[in-house]
Amino acid sequence: MNGTESETRTATDAELGLLDRYWRAANYLSVGQIYLMDNPLLREPLRAEHVKPRLLGHWGTTPGLNFVYAHLNRVIAARDVSVLYVCGPGHGGPGMVANTWLEGTYSEIYPKVSEDTAGMARLFRQFSFPGGIPSHVAPETPGSIHEGGELGYALVHAFGAAFDAPDLVVACVVGDGEAETGPLAASWHSNKFLNPATDGAVLPILHLNGYKIANPTILARLDDDELRQLFTGYGYEPVFVEGEEPMPMHRAMSQALDRCFDRIAAIQAAARSGGVDERPRWPMIVLRSPKGWTGPKEVDGKKVEGFWRAHQVPVSAARQDEGHRAILERWMRSYEPDDLFDANGRLKPELAALAPKGERRMGANPRANGGLLKTDLRRPDPAEFALDVGTPGGTIGEATSVLGRYLARVMTLNEETRNFRVFGPDETASNRLSALFETTDRTWMEPRLPYDDHLAPDGRVMEVLSEHLCQGWLEGYLLTGRHGFFSCYEAFIHIVDSMFNQHSKWLKVTRHLPWRAPIASLNYLLTSHVWRQDHNGFSHQDPGFVDHIANKKSDIVRVYFPPDANTLLWVADHCLGTWNRVNVIVAGKQPAPQWLSYEAARRHCEAGAGIWRWAGANDVEVGEPDLVIACAGDVPTLEALAAVDLLRQSLPSLRIRVVNVVDLMALQSPDQHPHGLTDERFDALFTRDRPVVFAYHGYPALVHRLTYKRANHRNIHVRGYMEEGTTTTPFDMVVLNGLDRFSLGILAVERLGGLGEAGEAAKSRFEAKLAEHKRYIVEHGEDMPEISGWSWPYGTAAEAGD
Amino acid sequence: MNGTESETRTATDAELGLLDRYWRAANYLSVGQIYLMDNPLLREPLRAEHVKPRLLGHWGTTPGLNFVYAHLNRVIAARDVSVLYVCGPGHGGPGMVANTWLEGTYSEIYPKVSEDTAGMARLFRQFSFPGGIPSHVAPETPGSIHEGGELGYALVHAFGAAFDAPDLVVACVVGDGEAETGPLAASWHSNKFLNPATDGAVLPILHLNGYKIANPTILARLDDDELRQLFTGYGYEPVFVEGEEPMPMHRAMSQALDRCFDRIAAIQAAARSGGVDERPRWPMIVLRSPKGWTGPKEVDGKKVEGFWRAHQVPVSAARQDEGHRAILERWMRSYEPDDLFDANGRLKPELAALAPKGERRMGANPRANGGLLKTDLRRPDPAEFALDVGTPGGTIGEATSVLGRYLARVMTLNEETRNFRVFGPDETASNRLSALFETTDRTWMEPRLPYDDHLAPDGRVMEVLSEHLCQGWLEGYLLTGRHGFFSCYEAFIHIVDSMFNQHSKWLKVTRHLPWRAPIASLNYLLTSHVWRQDHNGFSHQDPGFVDHIANKKSDIVRVYFPPDANTLLWVADHCLGTWNRVNVIVAGKQPAPQWLSYEAARRHCEAGAGIWRWAGANDVEVGEPDLVIACAGDVPTLEALAAVDLLRQSLPSLRIRVVNVVDLMALQSPDQHPHGLTDERFDALFTRDRPVVFAYHGYPALVHRLTYKRANHRNIHVRGYMEEGTTTTPFDMVVLNGLDRFSLGILAVERLGGLGEAGEAAKSRFEAKLAEHKRYIVEHGEDMPEISGWSWPYGTAAEAGD
Repeated sequence: MNGTESETRTATDAELGLLDRYWRAANYLSVGQIYLMDNPLLREPLRAEHVKPRLLGHWGTTPGLNFVYAHLNRVIAARDVSVLYVCGPGHGGPGMVANTWLEGTYSEIYPKVSEDTAGMARLFRQFSFPGGIPSHVAPETPGSIHEGGELGYALVHAFGAAFDAPDLVVACVVGDGEAETGPLAASWHSNKFLNPATDGAVLPILHLNGYKIANPTILARLDDDELRQLFTGYGYEPVFVEGEEPMPMHRAMSQALDRCFDRIAAIQAAARSGGVDERPRWPMIVLRSPKGWTGPKEVDGKKVEGFWRAHQVPVSAARQDEGHRAILERWMRSYEPDDLFDANGRLKPELAALAPKGERRMGANPRANGGLLKTDLRRPDPAEFALDVGTPGGTIGEATSVLGRYLARVMTLNEETRNFRVFGPDETASNRLSALFETTDRTWMEPRLPYDDHLAPDGRVMEVLSEHLCQGWLEGYLLTGRHGFFSCYEAFIHIVDSMFNQHSKWLKVTRHLPWRAPIASLNYLLTSHVWRQDHNGFSHQDPGFVDHIANKKSDIVRVYFPPDANTLLWVADHCLGTWNRVNVIVAGKQPAPQWLSYEAARRHCEAGAGIWRWAGANDVEVGEPDLVIACAGDVPTLEALAAVDLLRQSLPSLRIRVVNVVDLMALQSPDQHPHGLTDERFDALFTRDRPVVFAYHGYPALVHRLTYKRANHRNIHVRGYMEEGTTTTPFDMVVLNGLDRFSLGILAVERLGGLGEAGEAAKSRFEAKLAEHKRYIVEHGEDMPEISGWSWPYGTAAEAGD
Repeated sequence: MNGTESETRTATDAELGLLDRYWRAANYLSVGQIYLMDNPLLREPLRAEHVKPRLLGHWGTTPGLNFVYAHLNRVIAARDVSVLYVCGPGHGGPGMVANTWLEGTYSEIYPKVSEDTAGMARLFRQFSFPGGIPSHVAPETPGSIHEGGELGYALVHAFGAAFDAPDLVVACVVGDGEAETGPLAASWHSNKFLNPATDGAVLPILHLNGYKIANPTILARLDDDELRQLFTGYGYEPVFVEGEEPMPMHRAMSQALDRCFDRIAAIQAAARSGGVDERPRWPMIVLRSPKGWTGPKEVDGKKVEGFWRAHQVPVSAARQDEGHRAILERWMRSYEPDDLFDANGRLKPELAALAPKGERRMGANPRANGGLLKTDLRRPDPAEFALDVGTPGGTIGEATSVLGRYLARVMTLNEETRNFRVFGPDETASNRLSALFETTDRTWMEPRLPYDDHLAPDGRVMEVLSEHLCQGWLEGYLLTGRHGFFSCYEAFIHIVDSMFNQHSKWLKVTRHLPWRAPIASLNYLLTSHVWRQDHNGFSHQDPGFVDHIANKKSDIVRVYFPPDANTLLWVADHCLGTWNRVNVIVAGKQPAPQWLSYEAARRHCEAGAGIWRWAGANDVEVGEPDLVIACAGDVPTLEALAAVDLLRQSLPSLRIRVVNVVDLMALQSPDQHPHGLTDERFDALFTRDRPVVFAYHGYPALVHRLTYKRANHRNIHVRGYMEEGTTTTPFDMVVLNGLDRFSLGILAVERLGGLGEAGEAAKSRFEAKLAEHKRYIVEHGEDMPEISGWSWPYGTAAEAGD
């Protein structure tokens, strides 16, 4: 395919000879990093004290990664193309560090690790050393957007980087270990979402070195026929490069890359001139090479090269054992360091000339430091989309559908720059964000049928029934300088708990790397939440993602519970303007009473939490109330207000204050979280000694945890999700968990105590109502009209939010 | 293939005609469940009040599921084979319920839902109705081992069920929606672990009905060529059944199933007579049929059948709108209920005769109620494997390697019954459980090479680089009556957070279903934990799985932190003897000091938490100490004891008590968790008012949360993981998080207060040591010998554990 083109560019033997030396240099530096703390160029015989006392690193995957890097360098230089290297095998850290040092980017970013003998000594010593750098690819590694810790996300990150980056080719090395993970197995289908006209290309390089930690890999033991069928079935055109003799392998790899880059160019040229009519068959490379290639064949009589024993440190006792040390020295000298580096430890000029220049170096590609390319998202004034809320509770609205109209405008405003996408697992419409489809479509490269609904190759709403793919694409998109928004069923966001972990760890580390410019925040909208899964049942009920989030560094995470549409508007707009954070917004999609005008919503959200004086009972500015009813979340707010209504009817002289919390982290002390309220402010809301009945959206423990240090924390009685639920009515869901208005009323009476007969009468009334509810729903299959139709009967709009 | 055999069994037109009626009966009952609360047999015209007020359910996938069920019935009856039906499309609840009612199992389990008109009315009314049953396949559904909530685990559950069940065929319907998830995409490779000689078979039926909630599916829009390549590449032999005309589809499906069951029989016969030499190419079916097949073609002028609008409730206003109701009535009557059910609402005898009998009915297959088949695991006396611990701290041992010897014996003891497997993502050796390989091998059906290490088709250690597959196989294995053990890197167990959620929800529901017999507990060993990820770095550090666990129902979850080898032995043995729980054990694999003899370990673990008098300072039975140092986890225990040692040297008169916690849930009050200590017992350990310095393995918040209600909780100062880490030395990891002996010492001095000059001097000494440590590691790359070599210098074995 494209035979003529690729033949004209075939590398000469001389070029491949130089390339082989470059590869040896990278291999030499990789081994040096794993083993040495001194004598970097082996200018003297290797002694025990030159070897690190703790040998931590992974050799097995590294020579293959170096091989790919050197060959990509050749292609970049020959074609002047922008290439990003996504390194799936995480423990290839030494290889990526070696290569970025060879091309000069490493020393530019870290000048102490200079391009000379002293710098090389530092390069070696710092690796996996206290105060140094991690053993895998990490934020510290130039050119990387992909942490090499948890496996499985290389390819989905690569596609995320390629969307809307038409000039970029993302070369993605997928290890045969990580290829066994679920997310990676699904990621191959990302080609169904890549538009050759407006996106860049992804070149997957499946690296079959045969082994994981202690096992062969599944894919490496398939024969080429089965592999070809598998990847052809996935929609690729696999090109095989297999062997272990360096020079034939160089020739095969250079030809394979020429063929792949030719094919990519042809696909793109066709799509960009003639338009896109069908999904192209993108090329990929299957690279079979020995694990620990060029390392020791055997150690202590046991097979190492080409086996799993090469995975980590093949010569483990090189400091203590002379025999081992001799193997190490022979191994390192086999790369002929004097043939590679000059007297000052600098790469020889004929080799240095092989690397691309400037930003074409993969370690210096700006896409790998996406914050550099990020422009602020253009956002409309959310007030334009606000619901007109008169009397609180007097308007019914669907919060997420209001948000959808705002997001549609965001989409339009950024149409030209093409730097905003919305992601979701087949739930954009179900989550009521359909207004987006008035301005864009769902991304779709497969065949379309006449009755299909808003599918297009250049759609900007990415839907696939995989939370992993949504999350991974979005991460890749953000890390390369763009913006995004991910809406998901609340319960199933746990599917990406671990991906969130890794992303938040990445963010934490980059905050200490001044050369990494801030990237846009990762914004989640969790809707179809626990309290409106009455129809889907118990399996769809889990509000624990925010608990998971709360374990991460407080400078990274934010959690918002907007109680209605206008607060949701403000919060979402705010989140889209932030950077280097993870923002979690939890909001419902069902028709619900609206509480605040946009202006009141803005003031309330900016404060994070506040008194809703209009919703309280006899709540005046002077003096303390008898009781605080607090709430966070839309359904808890509704039930809390209904409880106030009931209490006011039964116990008219009771002074009740309502506190609504939008920004959950406001509950924490300011020394624990930057959004934390001061103790004075907290006490002014929650009092120092009055009972607080807290209606909370999620598991109650989190509120206790966040308020642990507050004066009044002993008096805070939290109701939330108690892991009780099934398919039932919406109101029965809150009843099952004691979060309903009647149960809150009973709790309030109990906690206040001393209310005498009036209190007992109120309790009995509430208990009777609960029993009546149970009877009613079993008979009618729906909630009593007095509950499903309840709306807040007091207050005025003018008071709202004060 | 096996043409002759399958031809001889070809179904006649008459048989297929009956089968079509059976299918219509199931479809009729499915629609009835979604819509009707009365008039089940349409013996009178359909009126508004017959229709449920809230229509909750999913029609789209159901007719396809019913089609498969009816055809499997035919095969089972014809061949007398044991078949389990795993229903991937979760929202196929009405179909599974309908079919188990038709075959009689439903009424046997739920006698009120009888096989007559009244029972049919109950069947309809209960579905997605308050007090009724969920809308998807759930524990309540007879014949199910698979909750249909979160998508993606059908196929991995199916394989888990098939392992060691040689007479079982697991027919697994995979929806084309769920096929987009990562776990499902990886699950296809489970065929590389299925041994035709000793395991059962899995027959995947990929059901391409084309649409998800609001989108086409990826796989349905691939052409047959690409699909054939994909699944051939995955190692299957795909058989296509495509169309929409019922009778040709019945013919095609019956032939396809004959072909598949012939092929399965042939594969198994060959392997069971001639031995297993290579992985067979198992058959699978690709079933293309319209979404919402046989339902309304159009509603309100919009396409429904064969489109995503058929996903949920195709005629949404059937109660309120006469036109809609007429569509519904026409639709239901199109199945000709009078041709299917007799005057009493019972399935006509010629149709009832089609279902298999007794335990051959898929709703009555004992494998789907695995507890019925479960036999207790044979376990050796753990004392046999105990480390001989003399002076506490005087012995060094690797806890998990001791456990490995115990597990190897468990494996041997249950070799004959073949009902125990160990699962792990390529980490069994890395986690030091290698003793297992003295008695068994790793399961492996791929080609083997001469130098391969313990790979065999009948190996019982399941290793694949996918936590999803490990978890899913194990769940399937447990749910069908067997036992297992899953060891995993602590950080990466978050990958299966959501799978754990679903399993624990399943367990919670089954506890209220007396007909479901208890299954063996799901046992996790989390090792390679946060404090020994100094070499892997920040990405491998997350101890938050126990926080996630702690949100679930207290009757389901248990969390253990055995501090040494003998406690680990007791805990693991205990967990293997439990049922219907999720047990999480966190323990290290590195060489570490041992504290307790087996007898002391047993007493300590049974209590859950206890005073280590021998480890305290001046800690006598009478009177309260000045300070309590508590610990949970192996590394925190080591640092806590070292802190006591330091404090004793600096402040010799201080009275310090050491409390070690093994069973974390003991910290909770007994009203919150069955393992919770009484307040008296808790106060006897932790005092009511003395400062407590608590060295904890994980995120500190959990200890606060669990002790929230205790008298002394204000004085509990917890140190744990603060989300700080990198590649450094082991001791530096605890220093970075303030959990080290010196920081604990400083905290103790500060919290005690009033220690005057001696206190200040001690603090200064500890601070100086921290500074010295930092200098030392940066210079030497390893920990100071006084730290890495520290061992407990006091006490005697006789005292241990009292």
